[in-house]
Amino acid sequence: MASDYIPPVSDYAFLFGEAFGLDLVTRGTGGAFSAEDATEIIAGAGEFAASVLAPLETVGDRVGARLEDGQVHLPDGFAEAYQAFVEAGWVTAEAPESAGGDGLPGSIRAGLGEIWNGSNAAFALCWLLSAGQIHALDAAASDEIRETYLSKLVSGEWTGTMNLTEPEAGTDLGAIRTMATPRDDGSWGVSGQKIFITWGDHDVAPNIVHLVLARTPDAPAGAKGLSLFVVPKFLPDAAGEPGERNAVTTASIEHKLGIHGSPTCVLAYEDATGYLVGEVGGGLAGMFVMMNSARAGMGFQATGISDRAYQQAAAYAAERRQGVVLDRAPGAPIAEHPDVRRLLLSMQSRVFAMRALGVYLGDLFDRADTDGTGALAEFFVPILKGWATEDAVALTSDAIQVHGGMGFIEETGIAQHYRDARIMPIYEGTTAIQSNDLIGRKVIRNGGATAEELFGAIEQTVAVLRGLDDAVAARTADRLERAIASARSATAALLGFGQTRDAYGVSVPYLMLLGTLAGGWMHGLAVAAVLAHDAQDAADAARLVSADFYGAHHLPRVHMLAETVAAGEVA
Amino acid sequence: MASDYIPPVSDYAFLFGEAFGLDLVTRGTGGAFSAEDATEIIAGAGEFAASVLAPLETVGDRVGARLEDGQVHLPDGFAEAYQAFVEAGWVTAEAPESAGGDGLPGSIRAGLGEIWNGSNAAFALCWLLSAGQIHALDAAASDEIRETYLSKLVSGEWTGTMNLTEPEAGTDLGAIRTMATPRDDGSWGVSGQKIFITWGDHDVAPNIVHLVLARTPDAPAGAKGLSLFVVPKFLPDAAGEPGERNAVTTASIEHKLGIHGSPTCVLAYEDATGYLVGEVGGGLAGMFVMMNSARAGMGFQATGISDRAYQQAAAYAAERRQGVVLDRAPGAPIAEHPDVRRLLLSMQSRVFAMRALGVYLGDLFDRADTDGTGALAEFFVPILKGWATEDAVALTSDAIQVHGGMGFIEETGIAQHYRDARIMPIYEGTTAIQSNDLIGRKVIRNGGATAEELFGAIEQTVAVLRGLDDAVAARTADRLERAIASARSATAALLGFGQTRDAYGVSVPYLMLLGTLAGGWMHGLAVAAVLAHDAQDAADAARLVSADFYGAHHLPRVHMLAETVAAGEVA
Repeated sequence: MASDYIPPVSDYAFLFGEAFGLDLVTRGTGGAFSAEDATEIIAGAGEFAASVLAPLETVGDRVGARLEDGQVHLPDGFAEAYQAFVEAGWVTAEAPESAGGDGLPGSIRAGLGEIWNGSNAAFALCWLLSAGQIHALDAAASDEIRETYLSKLVSGEWTGTMNLTEPEAGTDLGAIRTMATPRDDGSWGVSGQKIFITWGDHDVAPNIVHLVLARTPDAPAGAKGLSLFVVPKFLPDAAGEPGERNAVTTASIEHKLGIHGSPTCVLAYEDATGYLVGEVGGGLAGMFVMMNSARAGMGFQATGISDRAYQQAAAYAAERRQGVVLDRAPGAPIAEHPDVRRLLLSMQSRVFAMRALGVYLGDLFDRADTDGTGALAEFFVPILKGWATEDAVALTSDAIQVHGGMGFIEETGIAQHYRDARIMPIYEGTTAIQSNDLIGRKVIRNGGATAEELFGAIEQTVAVLRGLDDAVAARTADRLERAIASARSATAALLGFGQTRDAYGVSVPYLMLLGTLAGGWMHGLAVAAVLAHDAQDAADAARLVSADFYGAHHLPRVHMLAETVAAGEVA
Repeated sequence: MASDYIPPVSDYAFLFGEAFGLDLVTRGTGGAFSAEDATEIIAGAGEFAASVLAPLETVGDRVGARLEDGQVHLPDGFAEAYQAFVEAGWVTAEAPESAGGDGLPGSIRAGLGEIWNGSNAAFALCWLLSAGQIHALDAAASDEIRETYLSKLVSGEWTGTMNLTEPEAGTDLGAIRTMATPRDDGSWGVSGQKIFITWGDHDVAPNIVHLVLARTPDAPAGAKGLSLFVVPKFLPDAAGEPGERNAVTTASIEHKLGIHGSPTCVLAYEDATGYLVGEVGGGLAGMFVMMNSARAGMGFQATGISDRAYQQAAAYAAERRQGVVLDRAPGAPIAEHPDVRRLLLSMQSRVFAMRALGVYLGDLFDRADTDGTGALAEFFVPILKGWATEDAVALTSDAIQVHGGMGFIEETGIAQHYRDARIMPIYEGTTAIQSNDLIGRKVIRNGGATAEELFGAIEQTVAVLRGLDDAVAARTADRLERAIASARSATAALLGFGQTRDAYGVSVPYLMLLGTLAGGWMHGLAVAAVLAHDAQDAADAARLVSADFYGAHHLPRVHMLAETVAAGEVA
C-alpha cells in the first residue's frame, strides 16, 4: 500500500524565512521572490504531489516498467500523471528564464526536488533528467537546437535523458567508444551502445531527447576526445513535431533492486542522427553542467525518500500498540518505547539536516554571481550528494526496523524505500567519485581554503549560540566547537597527505565527516532561530529536541571519522 | 547467478588452534576434539555446502517458496539437498549427545552455522529451527515426546518450527491468545493463529514438528500463563510414522523482501492435537532455551551472509578493470582503487571480527560447566546477535557499492544478500530486545560485573600486545586501551541511569559499542597470535592489515557511541 504523503511545508517555511536568520529567498533573489512566495509554491507542489504522484508509487514498484516489442510501457496512470505535471507547469517552473522557463531560484527548487522524489522517486527521475538536460542545453546549445529541442523540453512536451555509461565505461568516461561521424548535411551519425539509461524509453510523452557523450573521428584518446550530441527518439518533422523514428532502439531494460517505476534502458545507436552541442571535444564540460544539477538533485532525492520512509514509520509507530511502555500510561503506542523513539528521532533529525543543507546549497547557487558563493556551492555539491544518499540508505533501514517483522513484508510498503534508496550512492557518480572530487579539486588543490571558510561560518553560529541562555544552545555550541576542531585536524591530515593514496584511501570518511558536521551546523542554526522567538511553541520545542538528538547521536561521528582520516590508507 | 562459495577453512583453523593462544577446541572439550579435528569437520561441511547448498541459493531467491492447495512447495533441488544434508549426518552432528546426536562442541557449531548460512541462508533456517527445537525438547520433554518426536528431529527425518508470534503478540509474548485445552486422553486441543512461522510448511521432509506457545484455561494473564506444546503436522501412527493430518493448516505465506527460499507461514490451529512439553506455565522458560540457541545462530547467520557478500564483492573487484588506478601499473583491477580497497577491507575486517566472536561464544558455552564462563556466554548472546546482524546489513550494502551500477541489477546476485540480511536485526528478537536484555538483565542488574570481566580480559590482551616489538601491535594496544576507557565510562553512565528511560533510550548504542569493542579485541588476539610466529607469511601480513584497518575505521565508533550513551534519552 502506498502510504500517505504529507508535504513538509512548515519545515520549508522555517528554512526559507527563519532558519538562516533572515528571509533567505528574498536575499537570494534580490527581492524577486520572498519566503512567503516560496512557501506558497512548495505548498502547491506538495498538494499536487500528494494527490497525483504519491498514489502511483506502489504500482510503479509492483508492476514497474516493461519492454514489449521494442517499446517501454509504464503502468497505468503514469502517462496521465506526467501530462498533469506538465499542464500544472512544474517542468517549466524548474527551467531557467534564459531557456524560457520560470527561473525559480535554487532554494525553492531544492524543495520541489524533495517533494517530487518524496512522493514518487521513480517518477521524479524523469523530471530530474529533463531538468538536467535543460541546464546543459541552455549553457551550450546552438540557436537551432534551442528552438527545436530545448523549447520542447522546457514546455515538458518531450523528456530528456543523459547517455554516458557504456559496458566498459562507467566511472571511467575516458573509455567511451560510442562514435559520432560527421555527415555532409551538418548532422552526425551516432553508433554505439549505452547502458543504465534512466527513462531511456517510455510512453508518457511523444518524444525523447537523448544527450549522448560520443567520440569523434581522430579525436584524442580519453575524456578530451568526447563531444556531446542531441539524438532524438523521433526526428522532428518540418513542423517540429515527432516524425521519422531515429536509429536508436531499446535493446533491453534492467531488472533492478528498486525504482522499478523508472525504466533503466540499454540503448543501441546504429548510425542514429545526432546534432552537436557546443564544440567538438567539449563533451565532458557540457555534461558536467548536467551532472552538477543532477548531483544536487540526488541530495534532494535522498531527502525525499528519507522523509517518506520516516513519515511511514512514524505513522505506524503512532498507531501500533505492543507491550507496556516504560514510564508511560497503559495503551501507549510503540512510538513511546525508548528505542522506537530513538529510531524516529534519529531519522527525523537527519531528514531535517539534509533538507536544510539542500535549501542552503540552492541559496549558495542563487547568490553565486552577486555574493561570490560559487566556490562554497561547488564544495557542497559532492558533500550533499555523497553524505545524504549514504545516510538515506541507513535511514530507510531504520524505517524498516520500526515496523518489526511487518517491515520485511513487501505489502507493508516500507521495504520499497529501502530498495529504492540503495541506488542513490551509486548513480550520478558513486560516493567515491564525489569524495575524490571533494578532496582532490576542492580541498587539497586550494589548500583547504573553502573548508576553512565553512569552519569559520560554523564558528559564527557557535558564537550566536553562546550568547543564548539555554541548555540546548549551550550543548549544541560545545558539540559544534569540538566537531570543528576534529574537522580541522582531519583537514590538516588530508593536506599533509596531498594527492596520494593516503588521502584517497580516506576520502569517503572525510566527505561523511563534513556532511555530518554541516548537518550539525544546520541544527545549530535552527536552535538559534527558534530561541529568537519570544516564547517557544510545540513545533519550536520539537526542533530543539531534534537538534539535541542530532548532537548526541550523529555529530559525534565527526570525531570517529577524524581518527579514521588521520590514519590515511591502511597498508 | 549464484556466486561460488569458498568455505573459510583457514580462518577457522586459525581461530580453533592459534588465535586464542592455545588449542581452544581441546580446552573446551577436555580433549574430546582438537583444533585439527574441528578444522577437518569444517572443511567437510564447507565442501558439502559449496557443492550442494550454494548452487541453490539463486533459485531459492528467484523462484522461492510457493503455496498451492494448502501445501508449500520449495523450488526443485531443495528436497534432494535436504535429504543429502540429513544423510551426510549434519543434523545429527548438531544435536547434543543426550538427545542422541554427535554432541559437537559449540566452537565447532559456530563454524557450521556460518557455513550453512553462508552457502544458503534460506535453506539454513530450516536446519536452525530444527536445531533450536532439539535443544528445547532435550531440556524439558517427557520420555514419550523424546522417543516420538525428538528422535525424528535428531535424525533429520522431520523438521522443527518455533511458533511464538501472533498478529497482536510480537515482541510482547504476554499478549499471546492461542489456547490449549486439556483432553481426556492426555493430549491438548490447540486453537489459534500464529504468524511469521519460518519453514512452517514445506515439502522437503515428510513431517513437521511445531513447538507452540499457548495459553491454558484459567492460566494467569501475561507471559506466566504460557505453556509449550508439540503439535505435529501429521499425527504419528502406531509405528511412529506420519499418519493422519493434524488440524493445522497453512493459511498463507508471506511475500518478503528477502530469504524467499524460506517459507514464512501463517498457521491456523483449529483444535489441533498437541502434547505438553515440560510444566504447565513453563512455556516461556522452555522457549528461551530455543531462543538462546537461535539468537547465537543469528550471529553465525550474520557472519555467513556477510562473508558470502564479501566474497562476491572481492571476486568482482579482482576481475573488473576500470580507469587508471593511482600509483598502480596500468590494467590494475578496481580492487586496487583506494576506495574499493577500503570497502573490501572494511567488510573483511568485520567478517573476521564476527567469526572470531562466534567461535569464542561457542567456547564460552563449552566451558560454562567447567570454567564458570556461563555468565560471559549469556552476556555475549545479545551482543553477537545485535551487533553482528546490524553490521551485516551495512556490510552487504558495501558489497553492492563495490559493484557500482551492476550492484543494483538483480541478475548480478549481490542485491540478494542485502535483501536477505535485512531480516536479521528483526527476527529472533529485534536489536532493541537484545539490547534491553543486555543492559537490563546483564549489566545494570549485576552492577556491571560481567562487563568489567570483559574489559579486564581485553586489558590482558593489551598487555600482551605491549610486550611485542611491532607497530601494528603498538597501535592496536593504544586503540584498545582508549576504547576500554570509553566503554567503562559508558558503562558507568548506564549504571548511573539505572532501570530508567535514560538507559533504555541508549541501549542499542551501548550494545553496538560493546560489539564493536569485542570485535577489536578479537583482532587484538589475532595480532598477538600472528606475531608469535617466527616469521610472518602473506596470510599473517593480511591479518595484521585487517586488524590495523579495524582499529582505524571501526573501533573509533566506540568513542562516538560512548558520547551518545552518556547523553541518555534525549527528551
